[in-house]
Amino acid sequence: MKKFEEKTYESETIYKGKIIQLDIDSVTLPDGNTSKRELIRHPGAVAVIALTDEGKMVCVEQYRKPMEKSIIEIPAGKLEPGEDPKTCALRELEEETGYTSEDLEFVTSFYTSPGFADEIVHLYFTDNLQPMVEQPDGDDDEFVERMEVSVEEAEILEKEERIHDAKTSYAIMYLKLRNR
Amino acid sequence: MKKFEEKTYESETIYKGKIIQLDIDSVTLPDGNTSKRELIRHPGAVAVIALTDEGKMVCVEQYRKPMEKSIIEIPAGKLEPGEDPKTCALRELEEETGYTSEDLEFVTSFYTSPGFADEIVHLYFTDNLQPMVEQPDGDDDEFVERMEVSVEEAEILEKEERIHDAKTSYAIMYLKLRNR
Repeated sequence: MKKFEEKTYESETIYKGKIIQLDIDSVTLPDGNTSKRELIRHPGAVAVIALTDEGKMVCVEQYRKPMEKSIIEIPAGKLEPGEDPKTCALRELEEETGYTSEDLEFVTSFYTSPGFADEIVHLYFTDNLQPMVEQPDGDDDEFVERMEVSVEEAEILEKEERIHDAKTSYAIMYLKLRNR
Repeated sequence: MKKFEEKTYESETIYKGKIIQLDIDSVTLPDGNTSKRELIRHPGAVAVIALTDEGKMVCVEQYRKPMEKSIIEIPAGKLEPGEDPKTCALRELEEETGYTSEDLEFVTSFYTSPGFADEIVHLYFTDNLQPMVEQPDGDDDEFVERMEVSVEEAEILEKEERIHDAKTSYAIMYLKLRNR
């Protein structure tokens, strides 16, 4: 759908980094006026709602620099260029949790911040986990701690703001609906 | 929680715009090595899950430049400096939908992209809407169209990727749980 389309007549790349790129687009609005749009380009990401045989959600705790605190999230990671989201989801699950799975089921995908970023998260679910014999290496500059929490524990962690991000809040709702 | 803290030893502001700011922080990692973090500073946002007397979810369709398409979202907007989130939620509800409400109930808050941005969304719910006699003006450069959809319709729109963002996907799950 192109309703209310904003046509770009000039685009400037301000910054191109390891993960994100910042563009400023000059646009023509539907009423003919012009405006500027600050746009973050992101490669996209995946996340996995992974349930153990005991019905616990597999999580990882890690430091998140933008908020200057560590939070507890479902396993997730960025897409490599051209990478299939499901392949990426399995890789991140294995790297971050030490589990693998033969059946990741697609749940949904969503843009995280449609006002200024094109980051999309592809979300998968599995309740069929196998522990890996050998844990693969993760990224060099990532420090994560694995945890397994029940949905009830996750809700308490959310109230305490130790779970505090969109995909993990979504995962809690997904599991609550599934358990009913 | 400061587990795995990454201490900043240098910070550079690359861009400071209307909505976002881009900082590059040089950090010391827990193992003593160093790395860079690309950080988007955002004022934060609010969103409202608003149910009409007919049990329909109030939505707005608008063009989202980062994705170059228009999508259907729950009403939302950015916080002004120092603004109380609930006040902001009521303002955005009124500006975007023409409804007001005397009881907005806090649902949860979540960071949208904890890997690179500090944007937080504060989410509210109301099923007590009153049509406004006079519709307040919205932002000059915002073009939105109001819609009201049932949860079932919203799920179809989500499959069609016309609903395609985290807060609205969360809202659908919230209403599905509430209706059970």
